[in-house]
Amino acid sequence: MGGTTHHRVEWGETDAAAIVYYPNYFRWFDRATHDLFAAIGYPISALLRRGNATPLVDVGARFRAALVYGDEVSIESRITEVRARTFRIEHTVRRGESVVCEGYEVRIWVRLGPDGTLAGERIPDELRAVLTRAEE
Amino acid sequence: MGGTTHHRVEWGETDAAAIVYYPNYFRWFDRATHDLFAAIGYPISALLRRGNATPLVDVGARFRAALVYGDEVSIESRITEVRARTFRIEHTVRRGESVVCEGYEVRIWVRLGPDGTLAGERIPDELRAVLTRAEE
Amino acid sequence: MGGTTHHRVEWGETDAAAIVYYPNYFRWFDRATHDLFAAIGYPISALLRRGNATPLVDVGARFRAALVYGDEVSIESRITEVRARTFRIEHTVRRGESVVCEGYEVRIWVRLGPDGTLAGERIPDELRAVLTRAEE
Amino acid sequence: MGGTTHHRVEWGETDAAAIVYYPNYFRWFDRATHDLFAAIGYPISALLRRGNATPLVDVGARFRAALVYGDEVSIESRITEVRARTFRIEHTVRRGESVVCEGYEVRIWVRLGPDGTLAGERIPDELRAVLTRAEE
Repeated sequence: MGGTTHHRVEWGETDAAAIVYYPNYFRWFDRATHDLFAAIGYPISALLRRGNATPLVDVGARFRAALVYGDEVSIESRITEVRARTFRIEHTVRRGESVVCEGYEVRIWVRLGPDGTLAGERIPDELRAVLTRAEE
Repeated sequence: MGGTTHHRVEWGETDAAAIVYYPNYFRWFDRATHDLFAAIGYPISALLRRGNATPLVDVGARFRAALVYGDEVSIESRITEVRARTFRIEHTVRRGESVVCEGYEVRIWVRLGPDGTLAGERIPDELRAVLTRAEE
Repeated sequence: MGGTTHHRVEWGETDAAAIVYYPNYFRWFDRATHDLFAAIGYPISALLRRGNATPLVDVGARFRAALVYGDEVSIESRITEVRARTFRIEHTVRRGESVVCEGYEVRIWVRLGPDGTLAGERIPDELRAVLTRAEE
Repeated sequence: MGGTTHHRVEWGETDAAAIVYYPNYFRWFDRATHDLFAAIGYPISALLRRGNATPLVDVGARFRAALVYGDEVSIESRITEVRARTFRIEHTVRRGESVVCEGYEVRIWVRLGPDGTLAGERIPDELRAVLTRAEE
């Protein structure tokens, strides 16, 4: 299972070389992951209310082409691995049929403490079941 | 050789979990690389005027701890590999002595064409010599 | 005439107070103006190709309520004044029926020169006619 | 009293017209206000820990010139009005001696409630005394 987020490149996402400033791809990845969690019934806002969050432990991207203002892209996201405390999401950014960027996020399940302290926790069984189904 | 960029985490870099929103680390990497190029005598603005740029082909980061508003960090950047058309920069983000994030950028040397088209080119010999010295 | 842009507040748009970091409202205004220009047949990308741009000379916003992650908002934008070289756009941000922010942009018509130099120009007659109709 | 924040325009702050994307000026204003509060002994992080914040109710800016990548700017900030629940800060952005942007923020003193609800409160007497001195 997975989800697809659509986006049109905004003016503010470009830089003086007239192509997308690369940190924006990670904003799109993050949004796509949030969309995916909402789609599987675990909106991040609800997690946060219970004191949980899913920050990154590892992230990466490879770029095959540059994007310019106004380009229409899709971000396809799939959960590809679920462990005790972490899970992996892979993102593919396409312009039309053409892949422009492939990336991944590895996120950890944590309890938020004061001042940015994060305590890793086992992913709750119910959520793991949903993520694992999503993985298939 | 390498360089170190200093940064204090801004309010606008945090998110509703009160920690740094992760795409910002890549803004810091990009800034650190620009600082490094300026330091070795190749300010990116001068490259751009000649129609060149150094977009990303590969990027990644691992996070060991979260940062909060007001944290003072250093970003230490080193060129670790120079190839015909690409080079690699490694970045280490520290809060005090503690490493909070390690990342890398692989960048390609290109000529900017219209509408975001990028043509890979050999890194000019003079720049390669400087980057290679920086690598040592 | 005018246009309406829809947006769901993203995680990355919030800050450590768990409300929207205010510079993001201006990103939305800018996007709404770009959408409006595209809708009236003057996509900003086409203007740029001819060496023109419409940077800001004056901008402002009043906030009545805070927005949080996941809020669905609409940005309604209207051209309210067209002068020889400048025009004014008013933006109203609503969550449901409730107005959360009202703002405006005054933009100038310029020719882009090197290194950020901008030369004000009369808005072309054809565009002025379209903007003036849009104003009604 | 007031404060001055220094900034060098970053690559990621530019757009495809090769000038600063305007919402960034408000990021600078916000940072300058945070710097000012830290300087007068009221770091925003401490306010937040007590459940208070100072969101915007009114903000505006006028632009006289565009900025490009690498420009060195100063943001000079002064508290110009202190009322029962709100205060006004004026910001002047200069490149060298030349004013490129003038803006203001009117901020309200609030208590943060759940889900972005904000309850206006009188500015504490002690803080008002400090802000009023800062105003002189």
